[in-house]
Amino acid sequence: MPLNRQHDLDTISKNIFKAKGSNDEEAGLVANYLVRANLSGVDSHGVIRIPDYIQAVEEGRMRPNVVPKVIRDRGAMATLDAGLGYGQVGAKAGMELAIKKAKEYGTGTVAVFNCNHAGRIAEYPLLAAEEKMIGILMVKAFGAIVAPWGGKGRVLSTSPMSFAIPAKTEPPILADFATSMSAEGKIRVKHARGEKIPLGWILNSDGKPSTDPADLYNGGALLTFGESKGYALNLLMEAAGAALSGAGILNSFTGSNGVLAQAINIDFFSDVEEFKTNIDTMIKTIRSSPPADGVKEILLPGDPEARETKKRLTNGIPVEDKTWARVVEVARKYRVEVPAVDPLPASTPH
Amino acid sequence: MPLNRQHDLDTISKNIFKAKGSNDEEAGLVANYLVRANLSGVDSHGVIRIPDYIQAVEEGRMRPNVVPKVIRDRGAMATLDAGLGYGQVGAKAGMELAIKKAKEYGTGTVAVFNCNHAGRIAEYPLLAAEEKMIGILMVKAFGAIVAPWGGKGRVLSTSPMSFAIPAKTEPPILADFATSMSAEGKIRVKHARGEKIPLGWILNSDGKPSTDPADLYNGGALLTFGESKGYALNLLMEAAGAALSGAGILNSFTGSNGVLAQAINIDFFSDVEEFKTNIDTMIKTIRSSPPADGVKEILLPGDPEARETKKRLTNGIPVEDKTWARVVEVARKYRVEVPAVDPLPASTPH
Repeated sequence: MPLNRQHDLDTISKNIFKAKGSNDEEAGLVANYLVRANLSGVDSHGVIRIPDYIQAVEEGRMRPNVVPKVIRDRGAMATLDAGLGYGQVGAKAGMELAIKKAKEYGTGTVAVFNCNHAGRIAEYPLLAAEEKMIGILMVKAFGAIVAPWGGKGRVLSTSPMSFAIPAKTEPPILADFATSMSAEGKIRVKHARGEKIPLGWILNSDGKPSTDPADLYNGGALLTFGESKGYALNLLMEAAGAALSGAGILNSFTGSNGVLAQAINIDFFSDVEEFKTNIDTMIKTIRSSPPADGVKEILLPGDPEARETKKRLTNGIPVEDKTWARVVEVARKYRVEVPAVDPLPASTPH
Repeated sequence: MPLNRQHDLDTISKNIFKAKGSNDEEAGLVANYLVRANLSGVDSHGVIRIPDYIQAVEEGRMRPNVVPKVIRDRGAMATLDAGLGYGQVGAKAGMELAIKKAKEYGTGTVAVFNCNHAGRIAEYPLLAAEEKMIGILMVKAFGAIVAPWGGKGRVLSTSPMSFAIPAKTEPPILADFATSMSAEGKIRVKHARGEKIPLGWILNSDGKPSTDPADLYNGGALLTFGESKGYALNLLMEAAGAALSGAGILNSFTGSNGVLAQAINIDFFSDVEEFKTNIDTMIKTIRSSPPADGVKEILLPGDPEARETKKRLTNGIPVEDKTWARVVEVARKYRVEVPAVDPLPASTPH
């Protein structure tokens, strides 16, 4: 398993997207978000996506250098046609417009359609948190692979949501989760690594629980998280991420990701510093509360990713052989220079 | 266990609130929402609350006939001081103002503070759905009784969320759930009925799993639903329901319920009829998809409550003896006439 330095992974990623037609800014954005996902340990949304993205461009399903187009713009809301460009560009434009709206109206809500896979969606609520706002992203994901609660059919998607809450001295609370028991990408990584998955994530094609990730790709289905509650949230993602913009529903949905970006401007509601102090108080109270048996310390949403980022910035980013080989293959196809990578020392924990 | 007709339960409830000082409109609203909770099978938020509400008025923690006051009103947002009146009045005013905002700006977001217990919160997003909007309620609940994920301390609240999505020929999708494994009220009902609770809902004071609801009231803690995901949502309820309005956080939070009411006006985003048709399609697709082993049929969020309502409108509303005795006691104290109730026939399923 090769161990990449962030800079090298950024460079090869950016150069591949440039070689496939993206301008400097777009290539840099997409590369940056993918590598930041790897840094944070969310390898399912990292450079493993490069071959898929390039294939999507090759097949005309994704287009470089699309500027998202405002279709409706009224008061605190807008809709954006992302024109089947890179999803990172569409989702970022959506949240940026929501933030702009929230500066004028207190909140901003922007529905983005014709949007491709937007990567690790935590990036977008973070943009709002940096502007002293609560950021929320509701996303309709592509593909019918999730069973409704009580069912075994592949009807719903892994539709995720993400939100960021700014604090004062603490990092923002940052949540990012699929409304299925797992993101499909996580199972893809387990599959690539030949690992088992926990019981309760999927049903096989007979509707029975399975720990073999391959069963998902042989007609099985993912389960929703939190039983009927995650199921309900999944339907909200369908309504807010897909139907609201008019982009369809379930299988009739067009595009890879449907995004509803929301920004709530704290300054309109109350004192921002008091809000941030309150969030700090909550975080500190939670951290100092007694852990359950067998638990070392209590974490906040976003902590595991922040810690992994710190570790990988120092130690390097491990990429499994199979994924790296696919990235190198794409790079060679587009005559992009492949940086020398260090082999992973046997003693390195990852 | 006495079996009440809806009309009788409405009458005694309304008359109790009137006897304790509420005007006709307020008494009718609170009675109506409590009895509608009983009708829908959510007994934890029904007439079992009457003695608590009256006690809160007696102790000056709740005040009859408070008109919620607009504190901030800018663009698509507002904040409302509910003045420690009945929570139903404050939460309804919040959603009604959010709906009004959404008619002008596309979305409306209203934070309500100094708000008492608002009953079954599904009532408020429903108001938005009736106006062809998506309604969302995020609520900070009173009391520290929930452990953070990985912890055993009573740090967080049962803070619930609710949302309603309008359909065309189908009833709206209606979700209403605590971010804890269970609402505290549900455990209170189980406790009152001498029933056990499922493993995984609570930890006892030693931080060990328990099925005895009494353990919760002896220093135990509720768990969040969906492990770390429900934990993250719980923190969003703290931020949106409590901190956003400036009403504090965790134990420093003032009031029983902090409410963030959101209305998203579908008409601004796309064609409303197309949206509703898409939601109908989703509902029908889910209903007709294959059920898992041992499941008779797949339900939508809101189905169980709608079915129970239909049943109880015909058969009557069962109220357990202990709860009924407490309601009758309050009625007698305030010289309110108690209607004759039928004993529950032994053969009636409930």
